[in-house]
This record gives sequence, C-alpha cells and structure tokens, in this order.
Amino acid sequence: MKNPEDDVVLRLNESLRPAGRTLFDVPRVGWITGWLSTGVFVLVLALAGAWQPAVAAESGLSPDPVRVEVLLGAATNGTVARLRLAEMCDTFGPRFSGSTNLEGAIDWILARLREDGFENVRGEPVKVPHWERGEEWLEQVEPVPMRMPVLGLGGTTNTPVDGITARVLVVTNFAELESRAAEARGRIVVFDAPFTAYGETVRYRGAGGSAAAKVGAVASLVRSITPFSLQTPHTGMMSYEAGTARIPHAAMTVEHAERMRRLQERGIPVTLRLRLGARQWPDADSRNVVAEIRGREHPEEIIVVGGHIDSWDVGQGALDDGGGCLAAWEALRLIKTTGIAPRRTLRLVLWVNEENGLAGAKAYPRQHADELARHVLAVESDWGIGPVQGFAFTGSGRANEQLKALLPWLGLIGAGQIKAGAGGSDLGPLLHEGVPTMDLWTDKRDYFWFHHTAADTVDKVDPGELNRCVAALAVMLYGVAEMPEALAR
Amino acid sequence: MKNPEDDVVLRLNESLRPAGRTLFDVPRVGWITGWLSTGVFVLVLALAGAWQPAVAAESGLSPDPVRVEVLLGAATNGTVARLRLAEMCDTFGPRFSGSTNLEGAIDWILARLREDGFENVRGEPVKVPHWERGEEWLEQVEPVPMRMPVLGLGGTTNTPVDGITARVLVVTNFAELESRAAEARGRIVVFDAPFTAYGETVRYRGAGGSAAAKVGAVASLVRSITPFSLQTPHTGMMSYEAGTARIPHAAMTVEHAERMRRLQERGIPVTLRLRLGARQWPDADSRNVVAEIRGREHPEEIIVVGGHIDSWDVGQGALDDGGGCLAAWEALRLIKTTGIAPRRTLRLVLWVNEENGLAGAKAYPRQHADELARHVLAVESDWGIGPVQGFAFTGSGRANEQLKALLPWLGLIGAGQIKAGAGGSDLGPLLHEGVPTMDLWTDKRDYFWFHHTAADTVDKVDPGELNRCVAALAVMLYGVAEMPEALAR
Repeated sequence: MKNPEDDVVLRLNESLRPAGRTLFDVPRVGWITGWLSTGVFVLVLALAGAWQPAVAAESGLSPDPVRVEVLLGAATNGTVARLRLAEMCDTFGPRFSGSTNLEGAIDWILARLREDGFENVRGEPVKVPHWERGEEWLEQVEPVPMRMPVLGLGGTTNTPVDGITARVLVVTNFAELESRAAEARGRIVVFDAPFTAYGETVRYRGAGGSAAAKVGAVASLVRSITPFSLQTPHTGMMSYEAGTARIPHAAMTVEHAERMRRLQERGIPVTLRLRLGARQWPDADSRNVVAEIRGREHPEEIIVVGGHIDSWDVGQGALDDGGGCLAAWEALRLIKTTGIAPRRTLRLVLWVNEENGLAGAKAYPRQHADELARHVLAVESDWGIGPVQGFAFTGSGRANEQLKALLPWLGLIGAGQIKAGAGGSDLGPLLHEGVPTMDLWTDKRDYFWFHHTAADTVDKVDPGELNRCVAALAVMLYGVAEMPEALAR
Repeated sequence: MKNPEDDVVLRLNESLRPAGRTLFDVPRVGWITGWLSTGVFVLVLALAGAWQPAVAAESGLSPDPVRVEVLLGAATNGTVARLRLAEMCDTFGPRFSGSTNLEGAIDWILARLREDGFENVRGEPVKVPHWERGEEWLEQVEPVPMRMPVLGLGGTTNTPVDGITARVLVVTNFAELESRAAEARGRIVVFDAPFTAYGETVRYRGAGGSAAAKVGAVASLVRSITPFSLQTPHTGMMSYEAGTARIPHAAMTVEHAERMRRLQERGIPVTLRLRLGARQWPDADSRNVVAEIRGREHPEEIIVVGGHIDSWDVGQGALDDGGGCLAAWEALRLIKTTGIAPRRTLRLVLWVNEENGLAGAKAYPRQHADELARHVLAVESDWGIGPVQGFAFTGSGRANEQLKALLPWLGLIGAGQIKAGAGGSDLGPLLHEGVPTMDLWTDKRDYFWFHHTAADTVDKVDPGELNRCVAALAVMLYGVAEMPEALAR
C-alpha cells in the first residue's frame, strides 16, 4: 500500500548523511513546513538552545538523533493512521468479541500489515466470550409514562420477557444504600453517583448489581460513568459477587438518574419497567494480531507495543481502542518506512477481548512463555487519543535512568514526561511475568464523554493528537529497540 | 408559596431607608456573602469607584438605586427560579403544542402565579397546531445493516408504513446539490452541512426537503444543527416550498452524516431505509399565560416580558424555553417581593406554540389590539440561559438614550451592554405593530449542543447563570417601568 507521505519520508531519508550531524543541523527544507503546520516549530526553536547539550550527539550513536528527527517529522505530518482508522471504523463498525465485525476487522488489518511488509504477520488463536446484546428497554411507569435510553452491562443477567416492574430507590453511594437497606427490598436501586474519577465511580457499574441484590433489590441501574451527557448511556463490564443473587444491572443516563433523585426528594414515587434480553453464546474463535520488525542484532529481544482490537458493541470503538491500535501500528510502520533496522525486535500485538474478559491478554503470555524472559518492554496505548503527555512506566530504577536519554526528543512534541505506574488491562499478565510495562500517557480530557458509547466514533479523534501519539510511540520504541544495552529489568 | 430567600429579601427591604442613600452605602451585611458566592463582589468593588458618579443618586429617584441594589441581591442569591424550573420540567416533561403535558404545565404555572399574588392571572385562549410524532426509524441497509438515531422534523410528510428505501447522495450544501442534481433522482439526499452559525446552517433543516425534492430525491436527511454531538439528533421545524413535491425530511446525527460522506468519498454505496409516521390532529385548545403587576401611576402603560411556554416534544424544554419563562416570571416576582410598586404595568406573557406555529405570538396582538399603542416595551428571553451579556433592542434613538441610564447597574452583573436588533419569534408580531422590542442577550456558548434534543434537561441550566438572567431582567423591567417619562417610541 502506497501512502502519500511515504514519498516525503523516503526522500528526506535518502538525503540524510548521518555521520557528523546533530539533531538540529540537519537540512530542514522538507519538513520545516510540517513543523510549522503542527505548531511545534516555535517550540523547537525555543528549546533548541536549552536542550541541545542533551540531544546533540554525533550520528552513529544508538539511538541516532537524525533517525529520531526524521521519525518525528514523518509522524507529525502523517495521514495514514487517521485514514486507516476511519476506514476500519466505517467499514466494520463496533468490534465486539464474538462478532463477525471483529473478525472482519482483524482480517483487514492482517492484510494491510502484510502489504506494509511486516514480518511474521499472524493471528494467534484466542477463544473469546460471546455475549450478545438483545432486546433492551427502560420505561417509566409512574409518575408519567416515558421511554428512556438504557444499555445493559456486560455480564448482566436478563429480565423476564415482560421486564421487571418495581418502585425506585435512588442512592448516591454504597454507604447510603446501606443506611437505607430497609427501603431497598423489592425495589429497583438507582445508583446516582456523580462522576469523580473513573476508577472511583466505575465501582457502581462493576459492583452495583451485587450490592443492590444484598439488600433485596430486584434490579439495579447505574448512572452512566461520565462527567457529561447528552442523554448518553455508557456500557461496560459488571460482575457478580459469589454467593449473592444475580439481578439485572444496566446503565441509564445522567439526566434521568438526576431527575429520579429530584423526584424522590420531592416525595414522588417513581416506578420503572426494565427489560434486558442478552444472549450468552459458546466461546468464539478470535485472534490476537501480531506483526514484527525483526531485530538486526538481537532478534530474540522483544519490545511489544499495541492496543486492544476489540471494542464495546456500540459506536465504532474509535477512541477505545481503535486509535491506540492505529497509533502503535503506525509508529512501527514509520520506523520501517524511514529505513530503520532496529537492534532488537519490535512486535505489534493487538490484543483481543480487553473489554469483556481479557482473553487475548491472558493468552499472549501462555503462547509466548518461552520468550517472556527476553521481553524487554511491553507498551500499550489504551487511554484515548487526547494530547500526549508522555508515558507511565513500571520497571527498575536503572531502566528509568536509561529512558531519561529519550526525554529531550519526546519533549519536542510535549511528551517528555515519564511517570510511575503502568500495566493495566492487557499489560497485566505480562507485568505479572516480570516484563517492564509502559502506558502511553495522554490527557484524558473529554475521553469519558465518549467511552463505551455510541458516540465513540472516528470524528472524535483529532488527527493532530493522533499524530503526536504516533510520534511519541515511534521515538520511544526506536529508542528502546536501539539502546546499546537492553533496558534493565 | 413561601420561599426561602423571601425572608432575606424582606429583611433587607425592611432595613432600607431609601432617602439619602446611594447604591453603594446601603448596609450590606445580609447580601455581601451572596455577592461573594457569585463571584461578583470583586467586580463591584473594582467598578464602584469608576461608576459611582453614574449611579450614585439620592434615593427617591426613578428608578431608585436602592431598589435596584436590593433586586440584584435578591436575584443573584435566589433559588426559586431553579427549583420551579426543575419541578415543572420533571413533573410535566416536554411541553409540545397540543399535548396534555403542556396544558398540565400551564395549569401549574397559573396556580403558582396566583399564589405569588400577581394580578389578572389568566390563560388567554389560543388554538394551536397538534402534530404528534409517531413511529420513526432509520436503518442502513448497505454496506452493513444498522439502526441509527433519527428525529422527524416538524411538518414533514410521512413515509409509507414500510419506509422508503433508497441509495444515498451526500452533499455539503445547496450548491453541491445543484451541481450533482443529475445524481439525486430517486435518492435519499443527506445534507452534511457542518455547523457554522445557527441562522446559516438551519437553512438545510428548513428548506432541505424542498431543495431535494426539486432534483427528484425521494426523501432527505439533514445533519443535526449542532456544533457537537454524542449521536444526538436535533428536531425543529421545516417547511415545504409551494409547488414542489412534499418528501419526508428528518434529522440524523452528525456522526452518521460524516460517516456516509466518508463512505461516499471511498466509492462505497450506502442504502438507507427511513420510516416517519407522524399524525396531524385537528388544532388544539391551548393558552398564552398572562399575569400582571399593575402600575401605580400609569397602569395603562404596559411593559411585557416573557418567554415561550411550549417546547419541542423531546427532552424537557429546560433551556428552550423553560429557563426563559422562569427568568421572566422570577424577575417580576422579585419586583413584587421586594416591595416595588412600579409606575407602569409589568405584564408576564408566556407565549404558546413558538416552536411550531407561533400561534400564541400571533394571537396576543389580536387579543390586545386596543392596548398595543400603550405597549411601552416587549422583552423576551429565548436564547438559553448562558452567561448574560445584556440586551438586544429595537426601538428609537431616544429610547436607546433613555436605556443608557440603566447600564451601570446592569454592568454590575456583566449585563451592561445593549446591542441593536431584537424582536424574533414571539416578538415579531408586536414589532410589526410598532412596539419596541428587546431580547435578553446571553452568551449562547453550548446552547446548540442541547437545542431541540432529548438532552435539553434541567441539569443543563446553571443556577448562577439563571440567577444573573433574572437579575438583568429585573433591573431592566423595574427601570423601564419606573422611568419618569415612558420609553420613547
């Protein structure tokens, strides 16, 4: 597949004479307009004086500052990641585990990866759960009849075909539910917990069903986990505590949760009727997507980078996590197209089933058990495609010291920060096996407005921000793949 | 109805000794915390020095600076407007012309107005159109089947029961439709016009149906008129040009319109199936809501203030125009509760059927023909409850001069600006009769995110902004009602 900016990159690449050059005295004719267009040029000029000592190095060094410069220019001016993201999202729609959409998208990616010239392109078999949303509705019976948006949560049990009809008890948090436990019996509990931080508020989505069941509720509804809503329901996983009754658990909108709380405060009874009718099918065949750039000196030393290719079953999964997948893929593609042959192996892994089971993340270490000791680093981008800030890292102090050498370059695109603590979701099983892990750190900004909704669509991805994510990943991956000494565990 | 802040207002009011005081040396103990809480106190201090000459007047003047001060304090600290708005919206839901919801809300308002002690409280009979949304759906048939959000536009004709199925032609504007007229025959035209200004972009909602029909389209869809979307369809009025075929015309979401444009650019055919099944009932009985504070010297001279009490049939009509109605009502209520007996009559008018017919706005001048020559001013708030900026005014140069005296007070709450050009929607017929007209001028900010959607709910109204709208209206109304000479025509 021939991409528009490949020409530019290759031309620049050919004109490079690495020896004797520094990052800041390479001819800039080709990419100067690119820097200008991304608004970074002024920053570059401003920082050049201060940071030159850190980055001015004779070329031939590992990593090579000239290569980094070319990567940054190519990434920040690219269009491929955005175009491919749009094409994938528009062609296949949501990529939920067990769906034909997902398998179509995986086939499409595998074909593109082969066209790109990656090595060892393959889908590694993973059995994934196959839950399918069915008939769903939520209506108010009193005080006035109306329909409301609703999304059943992943893993919820169903209602009878006619739904469950019951009075509502609105609570703000678990403590209030406990203090009003006597009122909860036979009710539909509504958790109207205002969004604070995702990790805090999502507890009501995950554990609300069992908490409500323990006090005798017949169903529970959670205010969608978001700081902003246009009557927007947000789905996501929930789970049942062992030994408690399994009651239906679904997400409603912020607006209606707040409205019911106000009605309750005015002493006006609210009765709802909830219908959830999902199907749980036998586990389905799916795949982790894998592709490589084999290392020129230490092919056995592996740096993994990726995102998760599955999404929820609403929207397009553009931010969660199509953008992360495309950013990782594009970073490796640009390393290839700019002619870099890295010292170590760079491996793209697009895990499957992050959203409702982590089957891909669990399968990968099993299927690569013999390689895990030589996994130098595993990087994931799964926090949306907001303004890139840098990386979160979990690894040794010595590794942190080694990574510092890359910060001046990352700083050129505003990504020159490394904070502690990475390794969520897909990286968890690798972290458990002792692999150093890293998250792309983006400003989550309005990410949770769209997260797990029908509005997680490709128009929400800012092309400039996506490009800066690509740039940050490309520099980090090339840097770690090229260091003379492998990142210390 | 006893309201919490009435006590405060009355206490402050009782402590006032108007003679010999200026705006800035009234005891402030009661309301100083209020100013602090609204963040205006610093502004007051900063401006006091500069503006004191303009506003420092012996009390006993008309209008009385001490009265203004009390009004501002009461309005910016109030809770009644917000509580009543929430109660009305939550109890009755959308207030669409012809609905029982609307009539229930009107009854509720009339009862509250009587409790408030207004004079001549009444519903003035108005026949309104009665259009009722029915079965509606929009589905993509190819390239992949999916359902999409849709809202039929007010006045659209229906599809057959099974819907209309046709290939899509996406255009960005009317010019592109004309240039591609040959491709439009038999198609569903999608107007994917990005939001610029409301007045500009809304043309595709209003006139898109007939434009598409002229080139042989079988139906048309307009990208919802908004700068931001979470898969949010926006309804509103449309109309057919005389002599053109009447084809179904509905609103789709920004996300899907953009997606179809991208598919078209990739050469991928899109086929849709659209179902609209609204009912047009005989005209229904409704009412304009009217209530008064009769003038103490010139009861025959009337200043009208209001909003429109009807809303679209989705959401709660909290911003459009419940907030405007409550702001006008509360401004007059505070004038009463702070003990003001204005020189002229202040009349609250909540027009009905602004959204789909303007029947209330047209009925009012007919029903008050003998009074129109003595209508000093008509004010409406119908641009949402964003940060208040001031007023737009259509009237004589002399009237503009007279209004300038009120600007220093309005400036205390950031509303000290009057711009030219008022008299839209409900004010149009009065303007036509020569009545000076005025719009409350608010920063529309994110107003069109919510406008005519299911997300126009009471949680979108910021209580502080609502209070500043109340304050601006109260000062303007008291000022114009109290001027020694009536506002010059």
